[in-house]
Amino acid sequence: MASVDRSVRVAVIGASGYTGAELVRLLARHPDVALVALTADRKAGRSLAEVFPHLAAGVDELALPPLATTEALDWSGIDVAFFGLPHGTTHAVAAQAPAHVKLIDLSPDFRFVDPETYSRWYGLAHGAPALQTEAMYGLTELARPDIAAARLVACPGCYPTASLLPLVPLVRAGLIDADDIIIDAKSGVSGAGRALKEGSLYAEVAEGVHAYGVAGHRHAPEIEQAIAQAAGRTVMVNFTPHLMPMNRGILASIYVRLSGGATVDDLRERLVAAYRGEPFVRVVGEGVIPATRHVRGSNQARIGVFADRLPQRAILLSVIDNLVKGASGQAVQNMNLMCGLPEITGLEQQPLFP
Amino acid sequence: MASVDRSVRVAVIGASGYTGAELVRLLARHPDVALVALTADRKAGRSLAEVFPHLAAGVDELALPPLATTEALDWSGIDVAFFGLPHGTTHAVAAQAPAHVKLIDLSPDFRFVDPETYSRWYGLAHGAPALQTEAMYGLTELARPDIAAARLVACPGCYPTASLLPLVPLVRAGLIDADDIIIDAKSGVSGAGRALKEGSLYAEVAEGVHAYGVAGHRHAPEIEQAIAQAAGRTVMVNFTPHLMPMNRGILASIYVRLSGGATVDDLRERLVAAYRGEPFVRVVGEGVIPATRHVRGSNQARIGVFADRLPQRAILLSVIDNLVKGASGQAVQNMNLMCGLPEITGLEQQPLFP
Amino acid sequence: MASVDRSVRVAVIGASGYTGAELVRLLARHPDVALVALTADRKAGRSLAEVFPHLAAGVDELALPPLATTEALDWSGIDVAFFGLPHGTTHAVAAQAPAHVKLIDLSPDFRFVDPETYSRWYGLAHGAPALQTEAMYGLTELARPDIAAARLVACPGCYPTASLLPLVPLVRAGLIDADDIIIDAKSGVSGAGRALKEGSLYAEVAEGVHAYGVAGHRHAPEIEQAIAQAAGRTVMVNFTPHLMPMNRGILASIYVRLSGGATVDDLRERLVAAYRGEPFVRVVGEGVIPATRHVRGSNQARIGVFADRLPQRAILLSVIDNLVKGASGQAVQNMNLMCGLPEITGLEQQPLFP
Amino acid sequence: MASVDRSVRVAVIGASGYTGAELVRLLARHPDVALVALTADRKAGRSLAEVFPHLAAGVDELALPPLATTEALDWSGIDVAFFGLPHGTTHAVAAQAPAHVKLIDLSPDFRFVDPETYSRWYGLAHGAPALQTEAMYGLTELARPDIAAARLVACPGCYPTASLLPLVPLVRAGLIDADDIIIDAKSGVSGAGRALKEGSLYAEVAEGVHAYGVAGHRHAPEIEQAIAQAAGRTVMVNFTPHLMPMNRGILASIYVRLSGGATVDDLRERLVAAYRGEPFVRVVGEGVIPATRHVRGSNQARIGVFADRLPQRAILLSVIDNLVKGASGQAVQNMNLMCGLPEITGLEQQPLFP
Repeated sequence: MASVDRSVRVAVIGASGYTGAELVRLLARHPDVALVALTADRKAGRSLAEVFPHLAAGVDELALPPLATTEALDWSGIDVAFFGLPHGTTHAVAAQAPAHVKLIDLSPDFRFVDPETYSRWYGLAHGAPALQTEAMYGLTELARPDIAAARLVACPGCYPTASLLPLVPLVRAGLIDADDIIIDAKSGVSGAGRALKEGSLYAEVAEGVHAYGVAGHRHAPEIEQAIAQAAGRTVMVNFTPHLMPMNRGILASIYVRLSGGATVDDLRERLVAAYRGEPFVRVVGEGVIPATRHVRGSNQARIGVFADRLPQRAILLSVIDNLVKGASGQAVQNMNLMCGLPEITGLEQQPLFP
Repeated sequence: MASVDRSVRVAVIGASGYTGAELVRLLARHPDVALVALTADRKAGRSLAEVFPHLAAGVDELALPPLATTEALDWSGIDVAFFGLPHGTTHAVAAQAPAHVKLIDLSPDFRFVDPETYSRWYGLAHGAPALQTEAMYGLTELARPDIAAARLVACPGCYPTASLLPLVPLVRAGLIDADDIIIDAKSGVSGAGRALKEGSLYAEVAEGVHAYGVAGHRHAPEIEQAIAQAAGRTVMVNFTPHLMPMNRGILASIYVRLSGGATVDDLRERLVAAYRGEPFVRVVGEGVIPATRHVRGSNQARIGVFADRLPQRAILLSVIDNLVKGASGQAVQNMNLMCGLPEITGLEQQPLFP
Repeated sequence: MASVDRSVRVAVIGASGYTGAELVRLLARHPDVALVALTADRKAGRSLAEVFPHLAAGVDELALPPLATTEALDWSGIDVAFFGLPHGTTHAVAAQAPAHVKLIDLSPDFRFVDPETYSRWYGLAHGAPALQTEAMYGLTELARPDIAAARLVACPGCYPTASLLPLVPLVRAGLIDADDIIIDAKSGVSGAGRALKEGSLYAEVAEGVHAYGVAGHRHAPEIEQAIAQAAGRTVMVNFTPHLMPMNRGILASIYVRLSGGATVDDLRERLVAAYRGEPFVRVVGEGVIPATRHVRGSNQARIGVFADRLPQRAILLSVIDNLVKGASGQAVQNMNLMCGLPEITGLEQQPLFP
Repeated sequence: MASVDRSVRVAVIGASGYTGAELVRLLARHPDVALVALTADRKAGRSLAEVFPHLAAGVDELALPPLATTEALDWSGIDVAFFGLPHGTTHAVAAQAPAHVKLIDLSPDFRFVDPETYSRWYGLAHGAPALQTEAMYGLTELARPDIAAARLVACPGCYPTASLLPLVPLVRAGLIDADDIIIDAKSGVSGAGRALKEGSLYAEVAEGVHAYGVAGHRHAPEIEQAIAQAAGRTVMVNFTPHLMPMNRGILASIYVRLSGGATVDDLRERLVAAYRGEPFVRVVGEGVIPATRHVRGSNQARIGVFADRLPQRAILLSVIDNLVKGASGQAVQNMNLMCGLPEITGLEQQPLFP
């Protein structure tokens, strides 16, 4: 059995959404973590088990604190705060946190280096521009030392995580044309959260598929920011998300043009090298096709590289669980890094199939 | 009530698969059709209602003939034969049909002008090259006069139907670059038929998504043949199919490069003009996103046209029901045309949602 | 093609829910019906095609009237009004309708002979008790002459339809014990309507099953009222509904005790006799198991009769599409009857599978 | 991190089915277990990761042995053997195992005290009647001391597990009538295994529900054997399974008659007392409705107790994950018990939702 000391005191601020519940699922079994506070303003006073009955099914009575208001939070007893709040509401709360608290945000509020980009895409002024300068974009494998040293980490969106893992190493190496990237992404419905929207009803989603946010989804500028950093110049990408009749999972099918005489084998070798030894990212063998159900419930990412029929083009297939590597799992991975813990602690779950 | 004369005597050869059942669903209520023969070699002697119980649920006892062997077929009493056989098996049967019988094939066996292409992709010699010269590729809206005059029509594959409806008019008009077409397609499982394959099991498909046949799917040469005809030269396309956890429906998300100074508005106008007055193909309004569930169970196709964030590029979204417009519905549409009947007869069903 | 005169002028009051959309799907192709008014107070001014895009996919531009407010309705041009309003709101509108308008209600507002029962279960005073005395409970096959003569028909709930079709003939004949009826029912999610409820979200429904309304669902008293009429005395039943991860369909698995020396064969024979010649209700062969997917999209009901392992007990399995025979289809069936039209007009669709 | 010694050497015989894969998922992270052999005769020579790609996604390269033939098994290095073979094939292999190997069978081959019952229901002579006398029926919570002492444990079927957990304590206490038990059970498709059957295809299962094995399912005699032991006399039960469009989960909705003056509160109190302190079985609060998705992926069982509308009757709702508590999880739980390990080791996973 695990030796457990639970010395890291954690608050989950905004615990009543799917990413909040997923944080609790992972942290409740994390041997170094004590969950000391859960907040959810509209559901304050209720137990999390009432809001998410699956979290009451643990092997022992999980001693979870009841949901409280964010205002009532006692920051003094908290080492790490995860934020699972809707966009636009994190700035104010994060700005109140004392300096000793490490901040890990799952919302988009701190993802953009340039507050103008945030304002333009989210239609809101940035509420904590000073704090923004401290924020580190938390795609763990691509910025490990910076994340380890950061106080505030902005975890990437689910689509950017799936897209950037294969793209950034290739753009950095100049192996693909950063101006000709087409990302056709497919996501499970949990990515839309637990909010009541007609488009999230079972009968509107089951037995069908459709694109959404065509040429205007808010994850596009986030992807572009990271590609631009890798390319050393401004870029634009095609990012076209699709809603799938499934709970979890993202598949990004990415169509790229080779550059500088690179071959498909070069792409594969670059990615294999980039992720050698990584516990959570794996480049699958030639001809193996990654499927979202191979990573469900786990913090794993898998990447496949294929030659296109079109000359000088390649296809990258990247899969993650949107709620784990695409959100709460990567957040825990970042916490481990920021707290000097082994990076895989609490994240060893095997995928669940079928 | 419909006035019914049932003067067209129809055989369905290979009636025990999903496309066969869908032919019967549509033809059983077609006022001009008498279903006089159903064949299914391995299930000969059984009733179709036993093999497909939903076909026993008609408002009156459908007087369907029992399943017989193809060998036992009496061609003399047949005006039109639909073929729903596996690829490689249609050539021999079709070659036996007397000249008075119109032939409508749903398999790939007669889709390729060049028998060499067929052989290369299907790994079989073409068994009826003489008949091939008579065959007309049956994408109804794009070849109406030729289909009306043909004796043998090869109905397009489901993916080609969804892909070519938006692409062909644009390539013909020179508005897009025929050498830079990326088709990311998503299909329901019924496209794989009723054959027993591990990959078609519920537990292998539900709650997940994956690509398949990457850079090697047999519908690629079929799409390329039609694009090449429209372009007046050889072309290759990226065609990447994905298996969706849904029964029916295809969405083709197509990424194209504008050419010759064309704008996205030019694309839209061209498609609107191409399909004006068409009963089954509709270009949806600006900003409207087509969904497979909007056409489920019907012979409808819907096309959306969107500007890309990438300059000089556009996105085409095309949806059909793979078993109807993508197979059996289009086959019936072609039969109507070949028999001089109003093209919509028997195909007026509204989509079923939710 | 159908000869169409469209002489029955129809209004759908409350057209923006799933049952409203399903009424339009069926009535738009009904050769005797002109859809002259559609109301939806909160969506007034919009087109139905905007609210339900699948209804814009018809083979010709369906000339549907735009959604209007109920208040703006011109009753003078209406022969038949269907009500798809939430419970508690139909009484007032129905009471305003002029005497020449036939009223077909899909809500529970007029289903109870005793307004007290309605009040007790729905928590509301009955708003039109005088009109209640005119109302006929519209389970078509069980009360055909009365429905044909009625001005106001209250269409049964979806669960009562599936449950009563097998039960009423057996209770009337004294073949089963009316005091020992257990109905374990399973329904698709569309039965909950298009309202925004957390419990109807895709992620809350997919990949799981649960009971709801245990021992307290409002369809219980409706079932009991009909069983009591058949038995000639007050009865109570066990009715336990379950929410299924599917769009459409109800399966009622009914566990009954034989009475008066009856055998399972007696039950089967009684049901076969009761439904002989019925266009929409079929008792399936011995050993055949009815499935909801065999009736999807159609007005069909299918009933199976099985011996139990327990002595003197039997199992009845009954399936319908909850939106068709369980709601809008049966409503159209009743309209046909009330208007002297052939009962199957507009309802000939074959089930859609897969 | 867990302290790991991996001192228990385990073989999984029949590792290529869903229960085999689920055993590996659980055992691969079990700190006391070394997986030393995996067998699958038809897939011998392949890696398990090839057969089940999700098992290749672990946080480190899982050092799983390749699939071998059962014949090639070296029993000397094995402490515990799990059997995931088809029924009828376990007897012979188990009989060959040396005495030092503990045997845990997931098939039905050793579940019946009376080999005659096995023969009658499975149509096969019992191949190891001597070994049968050693076998202990492994519903852990109901036979803990016997299981701890046994060399051969026959793990219960998934349906019996879900059904017997609530029923046995109540029958033992005489609180319900053992002759009037109706079990309407709903199962996910993974219960049918990975075998290629038409009825397990996605398109045959999705978007619908149906009963199967009505009055003849092989889990009925297994349930009856355990109820009879609890009642002290022969009994028969109604057991009616239904196939659900979901991967995992069983819900047993059980309709019972109170006996001996018992009340519904008595039932609840009895079950609360029976399972007090149990790590995996929980009686949920009054009015709380258990759902399969609340236990998905975990070894949890949850039981709800409800008054019926019918006098003197009650409703029991019981949910498990069929592959975990209904198969592989309970098998590991039994292994822990048989090996003197803490019972929850390796089974602490929280349920996965959504």
